[in-house]
Amino acid sequence: MLFQVRMDVHIPLDMPTDKANAIKAVEKAYSQELQRQGKWRHIWRITGQYSNSSIFDVESNEELHSILQELPLYPYMKVEVMALNRHPSSIREDDS
Amino acid sequence: MLFQVRMDVHIPLDMPTDKANAIKAVEKAYSQELQRQGKWRHIWRITGQYSNSSIFDVESNEELHSILQELPLYPYMKVEVMALNRHPSSIREDDS
Amino acid sequence: MLFQVRMDVHIPLDMPTDKANAIKAVEKAYSQELQRQGKWRHIWRITGQYSNSSIFDVESNEELHSILQELPLYPYMKVEVMALNRHPSSIREDDS
Amino acid sequence: MLFQVRMDVHIPLDMPTDKANAIKAVEKAYSQELQRQGKWRHIWRITGQYSNSSIFDVESNEELHSILQELPLYPYMKVEVMALNRHPSSIREDDS
Amino acid sequence: MLFQVRMDVHIPLDMPTDKANAIKAVEKAYSQELQRQGKWRHIWRITGQYSNSSIFDVESNEELHSILQELPLYPYMKVEVMALNRHPSSIREDDS
Amino acid sequence: MLFQVRMDVHIPLDMPTDKANAIKAVEKAYSQELQRQGKWRHIWRITGQYSNSSIFDVESNEELHSILQELPLYPYMKVEVMALNRHPSSIREDDS
Amino acid sequence: MLFQVRMDVHIPLDMPTDKANAIKAVEKAYSQELQRQGKWRHIWRITGQYSNSSIFDVESNEELHSILQELPLYPYMKVEVMALNRHPSSIREDDS
Amino acid sequence: MLFQVRMDVHIPLDMPTDKANAIKAVEKAYSQELQRQGKWRHIWRITGQYSNSSIFDVESNEELHSILQELPLYPYMKVEVMALNRHPSSIREDDS
Amino acid sequence: MLFQVRMDVHIPLDMPTDKANAIKAVEKAYSQELQRQGKWRHIWRITGQYSNSSIFDVESNEELHSILQELPLYPYMKVEVMALNRHPSSIREDDS
Amino acid sequence: MLFQVRMDVHIPLDMPTDKANAIKAVEKAYSQELQRQGKWRHIWRITGQYSNSSIFDVESNEELHSILQELPLYPYMKVEVMALNRHPSSIREDDS
Repeated sequence: MLFQVRMDVHIPLDMPTDKANAIKAVEKAYSQELQRQGKWRHIWRITGQYSNSSIFDVESNEELHSILQELPLYPYMKVEVMALNRHPSSIREDDS
Repeated sequence: MLFQVRMDVHIPLDMPTDKANAIKAVEKAYSQELQRQGKWRHIWRITGQYSNSSIFDVESNEELHSILQELPLYPYMKVEVMALNRHPSSIREDDS
Repeated sequence: MLFQVRMDVHIPLDMPTDKANAIKAVEKAYSQELQRQGKWRHIWRITGQYSNSSIFDVESNEELHSILQELPLYPYMKVEVMALNRHPSSIREDDS
Repeated sequence: MLFQVRMDVHIPLDMPTDKANAIKAVEKAYSQELQRQGKWRHIWRITGQYSNSSIFDVESNEELHSILQELPLYPYMKVEVMALNRHPSSIREDDS
Repeated sequence: MLFQVRMDVHIPLDMPTDKANAIKAVEKAYSQELQRQGKWRHIWRITGQYSNSSIFDVESNEELHSILQELPLYPYMKVEVMALNRHPSSIREDDS
Repeated sequence: MLFQVRMDVHIPLDMPTDKANAIKAVEKAYSQELQRQGKWRHIWRITGQYSNSSIFDVESNEELHSILQELPLYPYMKVEVMALNRHPSSIREDDS
Repeated sequence: MLFQVRMDVHIPLDMPTDKANAIKAVEKAYSQELQRQGKWRHIWRITGQYSNSSIFDVESNEELHSILQELPLYPYMKVEVMALNRHPSSIREDDS
Repeated sequence: MLFQVRMDVHIPLDMPTDKANAIKAVEKAYSQELQRQGKWRHIWRITGQYSNSSIFDVESNEELHSILQELPLYPYMKVEVMALNRHPSSIREDDS
Repeated sequence: MLFQVRMDVHIPLDMPTDKANAIKAVEKAYSQELQRQGKWRHIWRITGQYSNSSIFDVESNEELHSILQELPLYPYMKVEVMALNRHPSSIREDDS
Repeated sequence: MLFQVRMDVHIPLDMPTDKANAIKAVEKAYSQELQRQGKWRHIWRITGQYSNSSIFDVESNEELHSILQELPLYPYMKVEVMALNRHPSSIREDDS
């Protein structure tokens, strides 16, 4: 099942750079592992924002929740979730 | 360049079904032609809504505007446009 | 999978009462059939509104969308969909 | 009487983990005791959020207020309350 | 139980004056009967608006819903309902 | 003249309990004195919130402002003021 | 007592020009009479809008409501009312 | 040229009273000097708020900006600016 | 003086194409004349919308209002006006 | 390609003046260099706000994002991005 998720990141201004970089490095590795598994199908940067718009392909709402709450940046994020369907006009068989 | 576009369709309740179906058929053909050209990269239905969330890959803002305003359903749509970038964590080379 | 759906109904003021009643009767039968199947687990009236708050238990986003768009009152509704998970504090085994 | 309540939890980023865990453990026990009493009829996690959507069945507005303000996490919550009625289309006798 | 209800009335501009006056007369009689019964404890006009702010004292959410949906102006109203409790600082014994 | 005032209280999480209790005690005495004078005609708790909905009967906007800004909790409040009139359907002579 | 009132006028697009002009002429005369009486102390056009921002000086909320609801354009207006006080920094004795 | 400006003041709760009073005293003197010059034509307190609604009469947008950013309380303010015109119904020659 | 103005156009769906085209032709000529005079310094289409974002350079608020309300499409527009200043970082002498 | 960008700056109240001034000086030099390159075509102060409205002319969404996130004040900004097109009524050849 597909979901569109928007994540807006607000790292506190007083977090030491080292700590922030460490969290971001773990976040990146975590995201890329999920992309390789096909769970996190797309991730785009929103122009001008410290935010992304992503597409997830998961087994269930539960799986999506588990993935999101384990994001290292989750405590610093505002998250919006929107359920998606295959569109009847889509020509891509694999685009759910 | 990538853009995320949300389209919410509000066909007037008193439009004759024949007319509505004719417009939707042209809309579908138009969308699929653009998908085949690679301009309209993704289209998903938003669950529960007469709305889609789409990803466009165009040469310029002008091209995106031309594509949108020629949509047969454009007069009945509310449209939101958001510029996207390739994300530094993306593992897909072709995902801009 | 569980979803919470809010439906706000806005029947046009000039719809003849007979037509409105006929639509509502089909709507009620359709809702009750889905309740008997266990797809539409709960439906509550929102106090003071011509609106309901409902819980659906479906196989997929696609099934939820199909159910909603076939509602006889769908053309007159504003719909909001929110994905739900089982809560770790819930004591009800069957409450997903 | 039924009420739908949404609770969004915002624990301060600098609260020590031990303290947060202790509060959450008391919260869980408190919630489960109320579920066993039938006062807190349902609790669902909202996908992607540190939030729940719950249904309460109480004697009065006063009882609902007392239950909510005694939640250990109450000082860290944004709470929304919505009164509900039995819906005329509901097939469940015990669903108020 | 006490509820605060705000009603904003939007009578269509093309409703004949006679019809509007007839509806308003029934509305007034209906409101006054409920005031005499003690169900509709207060009604105030909101300055500058065709709106009122009212306090209801009812047995249940169901009774409040029945009262509201039988208002002759209900089809032309936007309604907001807010549950109230006796306040611990109140000095009025009968002010719930 | 009548005014409806909503007060939402946000006491800082790090205020010592003793200090908070002392402020609340003064607030309660202040409110009850104004209730006895008939200036603060009603005060209700909003269910589930640390908020009240109140009705004031004052000589002027100035008097209302003076009363509000002297509230001990005023620095921690969000305040909304709405002017009210006697309603033409009201049956209570003393309900302005 | 002083009130700031914003009025946004939305005359239906299909109202005949003659009728609209007649209403506006009565509106202007009515406004100017109230200005001469000192009730309607200021009226300014909001740049770019068919809207005004006005200051009223009235005896009571009731008087303000009566003035507003008798405006010939009232059925076509959205109205916002905000109570004002003399400001402690004001140097104008007559500016309430 | 006339502008309506709303200023909402949010002094941090932990600012020492002496410092706050000193800033307010300078603010008051600054405001009164501008009132005497005719630049700051009106200032009213918004009932129940630590806010004012003001009318400025300045040579240009630049002059308005200079006046506002030199307010001693400016760092603690939320400011809204709205351009105004003389209204065609106004009877006051000097009310722009 | 500079102002940024956003105009969102909503032509009624049932306006005959001939009439709409005639209005748009007059609108275009009117806009271009003002551009040649230097009053309407910039006009950009907002991508995906029937809307523009424009910069006006006028003598006064009054002149801006006159220009806007004489737009042939004005009755079908939602207009937002924002006063601008020369920015201290601007390197363009003629950019106000 | 053209983009309109609004930047609202919120420097923390407790940042030392020296540090704030140093950041602003780098910001100004950075902005002016981009203006000289023609990337940052316009920058205007929004009257009364610590905000600017700017027009960028860039090769791509990626270039815009890079420019914005390298702004020295970026960590303290709220940023809004809106894609623009040349307008069919524009008389300026070089105004995209």
